[in-house]
Amino acid sequence: MINFTVGPVQMNEEVRKIGGEEIPYFRTDEFSAVMKANERMFLKSAYAGKNARAVFLTGSGTSAMEATVMHTLSTEDKALVINGGSFGHRFAELCELHNIPYDEIKLQPGKSLQESDLAKYDRKGYSALLVNVHETSTGVHYDLDMIHEFCEKNEIFLIVDAISSFLADEVNMEKWKIDVLIVGSQKALAVPPGIAILGLSERAVDKIEFIETKCMYLDLKNALKNGERGQTPFTPAVGTLLQIHARLKEIDTIGVEKEIGKVKNLAEDFRNRIQDFPLSFFSDSMSNAVTALETQQCSAKKIFQILKDEYQIWICPNGGELADKVFRVGHIGCLTIEDNKRLVEALQDLVKREFLI
Amino acid sequence: MINFTVGPVQMNEEVRKIGGEEIPYFRTDEFSAVMKANERMFLKSAYAGKNARAVFLTGSGTSAMEATVMHTLSTEDKALVINGGSFGHRFAELCELHNIPYDEIKLQPGKSLQESDLAKYDRKGYSALLVNVHETSTGVHYDLDMIHEFCEKNEIFLIVDAISSFLADEVNMEKWKIDVLIVGSQKALAVPPGIAILGLSERAVDKIEFIETKCMYLDLKNALKNGERGQTPFTPAVGTLLQIHARLKEIDTIGVEKEIGKVKNLAEDFRNRIQDFPLSFFSDSMSNAVTALETQQCSAKKIFQILKDEYQIWICPNGGELADKVFRVGHIGCLTIEDNKRLVEALQDLVKREFLI
Repeated sequence: MINFTVGPVQMNEEVRKIGGEEIPYFRTDEFSAVMKANERMFLKSAYAGKNARAVFLTGSGTSAMEATVMHTLSTEDKALVINGGSFGHRFAELCELHNIPYDEIKLQPGKSLQESDLAKYDRKGYSALLVNVHETSTGVHYDLDMIHEFCEKNEIFLIVDAISSFLADEVNMEKWKIDVLIVGSQKALAVPPGIAILGLSERAVDKIEFIETKCMYLDLKNALKNGERGQTPFTPAVGTLLQIHARLKEIDTIGVEKEIGKVKNLAEDFRNRIQDFPLSFFSDSMSNAVTALETQQCSAKKIFQILKDEYQIWICPNGGELADKVFRVGHIGCLTIEDNKRLVEALQDLVKREFLI
Repeated sequence: MINFTVGPVQMNEEVRKIGGEEIPYFRTDEFSAVMKANERMFLKSAYAGKNARAVFLTGSGTSAMEATVMHTLSTEDKALVINGGSFGHRFAELCELHNIPYDEIKLQPGKSLQESDLAKYDRKGYSALLVNVHETSTGVHYDLDMIHEFCEKNEIFLIVDAISSFLADEVNMEKWKIDVLIVGSQKALAVPPGIAILGLSERAVDKIEFIETKCMYLDLKNALKNGERGQTPFTPAVGTLLQIHARLKEIDTIGVEKEIGKVKNLAEDFRNRIQDFPLSFFSDSMSNAVTALETQQCSAKKIFQILKDEYQIWICPNGGELADKVFRVGHIGCLTIEDNKRLVEALQDLVKREFLI
């Protein structure tokens, strides 16, 4: 199978090799050193500022989204949620569940955030903004320059889910004064799913200190305290953390920009090849991570099924209302231009067979 | 290294091989079939009753302990916690955090639960009992016949953390009317850490339906609903679930009793070999999973360090007040009698070198 989904994605040989090895015991100085290096290298790759910290949670991206809502916000906050799809909706649901007062900017699927959308919320007393910088469900990438400017002017605590954007698009905690950055292991970091990473600004770390613990497993205060000695409060996905270690070392060596460049290159190549197909770009502002494509007269879900069953290719289906209309092609993980060619050939075949119309 | 810890433990070749492979995309019929088989095989191996269900959470054992306290108990309950060590204490902390009225039976470290301990709580209106059937921190295994009898008489909802006991000791949901059974991937199941499994009786499933969701990530209602189609609400640790699949198939073939027999055999062999050492058994009622040993005149922590650094052997150190007094030797995972011999030889050497005194 060739995997063009948005995660889990294809992994490099070194990462796979570690996956095949025994898992070491982890309450040791050796593993603490690995975790301290992971924290340092992750913060460097996210361009975090002074006194920033990172937490590694064993869980999905949602576990980190919820840990953030539970343990960096309180009922005293007034939050603004950018809701442009399922993941924006999830942030709204989390605020609702945990009694965080919030309003949401609902965007049409496929449409990016505009300055005029934000203007209505200017100087209205918002204390936090939650955004999925790349709304993975629709492939829309928001403008962080614009969001940052709004947040700085309004002195707003900025929470950015960059789960599918980190290492695919520019992500810079210091430049954009991001307070909480959320990352997942199975996207462009290209290791198995199971770990979510939170990058926390000094301001976030201070805020966490004074917020009541609502969930032991998602408690960031305890995670930060244990992290000081390179440990986690509970048994983590040790193997995945070792794979993250290998990848962060690799990225540290080759440089974040070059890593992003590779994804960008794959995305542009694919987008060029797909121009003349009966498909349109669904998003008006694309991340390098993903190309969301809208079908015209055929079911997107059906295309996913045929590619999987007859061509040994996974693309990424959509759920809910977009299931029949949109599919996504990921550009993250160990993919090559050759893989792009194979996918485009398969799509050409589907045109010929009159499935893709 | 030889790994005698209580997890992560040594894995078999097939499990390691899967760990070294690419992770498949999981929102597919193929993965749903794997998950449905996982649920079926897990419930069979736990001797679950009619209409029981299983949930696979991406997280540590604690994530499942907390999901249980949050989503099977409410403020209307009156819980009784058996607290014989760090994990019993954790159940008490979770009840405290989530406002579940509770009392605890505090046991001396190393001491098992007696009928007289329970008698004081008979017919006092308790609605739930929480127990770590093997209190992993001290190696004490409690008598489930006795606990079951007490629960049945008092019509009590029985929550059993069998994280380190499942597949090492007899665990039978139906016989002991266990309502929630908690299991971890990295113990005798012998796959990497990252997945916790909950076995839920029909009564538990019914109870979950009417309890308010307090945490999206640990929401059992949503997990059960998604599980009906063999899926999870959020991206799970797909790779670990495939490894669990391989192990459950293996256990289904060879039989649970035989699997337990292997652990029992290793435990008995080790316990026989260790008789004449300046060490005493810390627990008055041992699980097959672990032998907790008390040192006499030397530091247990130091023994752990020397075995790790000079003999390439991991045993399991204790934390807190027992750190200098107790270490543990695990018998779960892919260990052999030969491994036992090597550990005992190393310990003999430590006696000779006058470290183990």
